[in-house]
Amino acid sequence: MVAASSGPFLQMQSESLLFGGWQRRYQHNSLVCDCAMTFSIYLPPQAKLKKVPVLYWLSGSGCSDLEFSQQAGAQRVASELGIALVACDTSPRGSGVDDCGSQKIGQGVGMFINATQAPWSRHFNMYDYITAELPQLINMHFAVNPAKASIAGHSDGGHGAIVVALRNPGRFKSVSAFSPLLSASNSRWGQNVFTAYLGANQQAWKSYDATALLEICSMKIPMLIDQGASDQFLIDELDPSEFLAACERSSVDVQYRSQFGYDHSYNFVATFIEQHLRFHAAALA
Amino acid sequence: MVAASSGPFLQMQSESLLFGGWQRRYQHNSLVCDCAMTFSIYLPPQAKLKKVPVLYWLSGSGCSDLEFSQQAGAQRVASELGIALVACDTSPRGSGVDDCGSQKIGQGVGMFINATQAPWSRHFNMYDYITAELPQLINMHFAVNPAKASIAGHSDGGHGAIVVALRNPGRFKSVSAFSPLLSASNSRWGQNVFTAYLGANQQAWKSYDATALLEICSMKIPMLIDQGASDQFLIDELDPSEFLAACERSSVDVQYRSQFGYDHSYNFVATFIEQHLRFHAAALA
Repeated sequence: MVAASSGPFLQMQSESLLFGGWQRRYQHNSLVCDCAMTFSIYLPPQAKLKKVPVLYWLSGSGCSDLEFSQQAGAQRVASELGIALVACDTSPRGSGVDDCGSQKIGQGVGMFINATQAPWSRHFNMYDYITAELPQLINMHFAVNPAKASIAGHSDGGHGAIVVALRNPGRFKSVSAFSPLLSASNSRWGQNVFTAYLGANQQAWKSYDATALLEICSMKIPMLIDQGASDQFLIDELDPSEFLAACERSSVDVQYRSQFGYDHSYNFVATFIEQHLRFHAAALA
Repeated sequence: MVAASSGPFLQMQSESLLFGGWQRRYQHNSLVCDCAMTFSIYLPPQAKLKKVPVLYWLSGSGCSDLEFSQQAGAQRVASELGIALVACDTSPRGSGVDDCGSQKIGQGVGMFINATQAPWSRHFNMYDYITAELPQLINMHFAVNPAKASIAGHSDGGHGAIVVALRNPGRFKSVSAFSPLLSASNSRWGQNVFTAYLGANQQAWKSYDATALLEICSMKIPMLIDQGASDQFLIDELDPSEFLAACERSSVDVQYRSQFGYDHSYNFVATFIEQHLRFHAAALA
């Protein structure tokens, strides 16, 4: 019931008991990214007996699936609440995948968008990966309830979680983010990535900008955002004011919390992940 | 009160708020290891107001101070209990430190012993480092109570914690270990390291072998050991039978627990660290 360990679609790379559940890492051939992709999944003990709710986690640029799986401490609470955790990679990777030796675009920086510009458009299709291919695999191979899914993320992954939730109404029961890039088109980091992957026409950026999407999409599910007040990227990249104003205009109910003294690291995520998981559990009940 | 951030003895490498306390990493020039050494310390919120108890953590070979600091999830409970956590490195490191390109001896494998054989004896003095130099630095620079210290570790670090506690009666209030090497002289791993660092004369090994030490040292403090029953090293390296028999002969009160299904990884540590911290907190109260 828990999972087919390996098969033609999924190769299990590692497995370890953790808080009575199973922490596993898999590799598979991705059609949409045209390369091997890796993800981690935590199956709580309850998955032995029934299909459990699932939380998708999107990490920030530079991370893989491992930071959340190893450093957030989420499994302790997921084990208690009976929620599966799926952590995907942040981009396609490997020797055949385009890269540019920069930390600002290329491998490790997928931004959960579908690139339209060469050479990125061949592999960098993380939006389709996270909205279609990965959940299809998860629903097919693991004891998760497809009707009970939520999504969360950190930094660029927080941007990804909110964009994916906005563009897929009805798919998720709740969305949350740590230190998210809320207005990618207006941050230097986001402008740099969008220009490379989507081209210079800013019209194309709007479908991946959470603030712009709020003008055309409604958000009916609970949304929780935590932002460290001592985050080194807060002022230049993560300013929430336009997003919060757009929420106000659209009557979107967002719980935005500024946490005094916290930075951009996984120490911040670890400190508040329990509250996020309990927030999602209430929506997934 | 919390700490002098940096000074002539300590250079702070990083600082991050975590569960209301401070996760910090320092580098300093070690006299006993004759090189720069790195450690991490977690100071709980209570350290703002008073000197707090301290738990020293020794990791297993191949690790640095980071695995425990990032993957064990100990700070959540330490914050609640008001205990500082000190995680040291597992060996001297750096371009000037001897190494042999093997994962079995050299950098990353200090075993918490003082090497007597060339070339190792110049730098590899981790026993003196963990029993003298490091606690002296900690007591001098941080808001910890030197009279309230306990010690714990994982794998080779579990061996180190028990050896250090046995050889320093009265220094620690309690000792605990995950998956410890309890009889280093009788394991292939231990024999290999001891031969390189201490020479072929097995008499010299006895002062660093927990089982042998039990014949000459008494252990009056509470001791807790957790061992994963699915640990890949259990049968060949970590067999507890001789150690437990020696405890029985010496009337040492050890709580040894075999945990069904768990392996040798930090997932095992993360699952049970809360119980270890509460065990130490009771002794440190």
